[in-house]
Amino acid sequence: MSNDEVQSLRAEVARLTRQVAALEDAQQVRRVQFAYGYYMDKGLYQEVVDLFAEDGEVRFMGGIFRGKHRGVSRLYLDRFRTTFTHGRNAPAYGFMLEHLQLQDIIDVAPDRSSARGRFRCFMQAGSHTSKADRVGALPLQWWEAGVYENTYVRQEGIWRIQVLNYCLSWQAEYERGWAHSKPHAGPFFEKTYPEDPGGPDEILAQRPAFWPQTAVVPFHFPHPVTGRPHE
Amino acid sequence: MSNDEVQSLRAEVARLTRQVAALEDAQQVRRVQFAYGYYMDKGLYQEVVDLFAEDGEVRFMGGIFRGKHRGVSRLYLDRFRTTFTHGRNAPAYGFMLEHLQLQDIIDVAPDRSSARGRFRCFMQAGSHTSKADRVGALPLQWWEAGVYENTYVRQEGIWRIQVLNYCLSWQAEYERGWAHSKPHAGPFFEKTYPEDPGGPDEILAQRPAFWPQTAVVPFHFPHPVTGRPHE
Amino acid sequence: MSNDEVQSLRAEVARLTRQVAALEDAQQVRRVQFAYGYYMDKGLYQEVVDLFAEDGEVRFMGGIFRGKHRGVSRLYLDRFRTTFTHGRNAPAYGFMLEHLQLQDIIDVAPDRSSARGRFRCFMQAGSHTSKADRVGALPLQWWEAGVYENTYVRQEGIWRIQVLNYCLSWQAEYERGWAHSKPHAGPFFEKTYPEDPGGPDEILAQRPAFWPQTAVVPFHFPHPVTGRPHE
Repeated sequence: MSNDEVQSLRAEVARLTRQVAALEDAQQVRRVQFAYGYYMDKGLYQEVVDLFAEDGEVRFMGGIFRGKHRGVSRLYLDRFRTTFTHGRNAPAYGFMLEHLQLQDIIDVAPDRSSARGRFRCFMQAGSHTSKADRVGALPLQWWEAGVYENTYVRQEGIWRIQVLNYCLSWQAEYERGWAHSKPHAGPFFEKTYPEDPGGPDEILAQRPAFWPQTAVVPFHFPHPVTGRPHE
Repeated sequence: MSNDEVQSLRAEVARLTRQVAALEDAQQVRRVQFAYGYYMDKGLYQEVVDLFAEDGEVRFMGGIFRGKHRGVSRLYLDRFRTTFTHGRNAPAYGFMLEHLQLQDIIDVAPDRSSARGRFRCFMQAGSHTSKADRVGALPLQWWEAGVYENTYVRQEGIWRIQVLNYCLSWQAEYERGWAHSKPHAGPFFEKTYPEDPGGPDEILAQRPAFWPQTAVVPFHFPHPVTGRPHE
Repeated sequence: MSNDEVQSLRAEVARLTRQVAALEDAQQVRRVQFAYGYYMDKGLYQEVVDLFAEDGEVRFMGGIFRGKHRGVSRLYLDRFRTTFTHGRNAPAYGFMLEHLQLQDIIDVAPDRSSARGRFRCFMQAGSHTSKADRVGALPLQWWEAGVYENTYVRQEGIWRIQVLNYCLSWQAEYERGWAHSKPHAGPFFEKTYPEDPGGPDEILAQRPAFWPQTAVVPFHFPHPVTGRPHE
């Protein structure tokens, strides 16, 4: 075996190692996001928070929640867990919040330290009529759909959520459907923490579009054929 | 090329071979489960049974159906095919049983002989009003959702279903939605085969939770970030 | 290192290279199809057309649209964009056409020049009541489901859609559900272009089955366990 042949074989193995790592990384990112969906279904809010990096954040309903142990915990533990499952880290009788996760497009950075992922969420949510302690502010039963454009980081070899950016597209009461959604009904955050004890650290200057308004959630990836970035 | 270098290159290639096999295995498991969904849509019950290992089993509605040619065939061929498509291995006019399969989290054992897979199913089901021979026991039209925690085995290089464990989460009549599902309405099996000719080989001691009750379907995988098993 | 050992290592690396390429190809095909869904959601019809090969085609509602710059553009740009978004390549106020893409089964040809993919589409569509310029021919709000059996080609290293074959399974008005879909209501194409300015280049001799009729969309892949092709 000549030196050139050795070099060539080594280069091929190095290239394969990079390719396989990228495929595995994308699978791990999918796993993190799909687990997020399964946890959200069942009130496992501590498990949700544990998916985040220390300096992770959530963008939700026009607010930014910063820091795993501050803003992210405030949203999932103080706000959702208190409201939806009465402070228990478990599913509540007669409360539904199904988070179907699908249609992943994932791009891992060449240095394997970060990744971007677009996912879709399709939700079935609400309360059963036999539930005594219904959450007053919520519709009895509703459909919801949205798109995530998230960022993930790899730390100590483990993929975590850096930014969960949930862009709600529409909500519709089960009884009436999306043709009759109340316009401009989005429950956007108005006040920051601590004025709102479960509020965000920052209010986004521009509120996201909400059905019947429509807007494109910016794509992190270029067009797969032309290679052009989206406007 | 020194002996050490040769050893190192060989080890890298061996590692890559294992990694690539695991990625391919996971894709094959997905294919088996996704094909299951497409077959269930269309009354292709023989094709469903053919996805199982010889000693495969189904856990469904509080019963266990054992053996590809015994319990599994009894459920899909004797029970479903007879009831839903009048014994024909084909879709029936005006009968719908859409089985959307999504949100896969798959773990292949290091020895490649078995795998675990969590999937979600979201269903649209029912009969068209123009269908003369409707199935009396079924609602006219309904939504259904559930989670699978399945086991797969690799035999002769081919992945098969070892245990299909379908954990139904909720059903809802189209007209009324999940806020109004009849409580405790789950059609659980009461009798075993042969007393019930299409019944299971065993009744589970504990009945699964059924909406408006809620329960976590145990996770086969540990938390993706903390690595802790779920309770 | 003996010559035999060198040969064996080279063969292993060559095999790994093929396997990894097939895994990457399947991911690229998924990306193309998933991007299709995101673009269709939002009236990005030019981006949809750009996913096709030059001689690509669409099979839709009993018609064949041939050629990226002819039939495919006629369908997406002249017909859909004009009708749905008033000629703007952007989402329209109060118009919904959500294209959830899932359940992919992808097979890449050994020479990597082409691939087949089966996907499922689940749609939420319609107009908000506050929208002044509703599309008269469409229901106010509806569910839709279908299966794609598509072909993709790889040209200049880039995967493109060769044949988008959308097999609509059912539509249902939101208010009434699929038990009450109007039978034989499929909006099949009756005339070809140019007699129908947005019509297909060819009408399929046999119209596809449409709910409450049911039919199996032929599978491009053999049964994953028995290896038998489907009838």
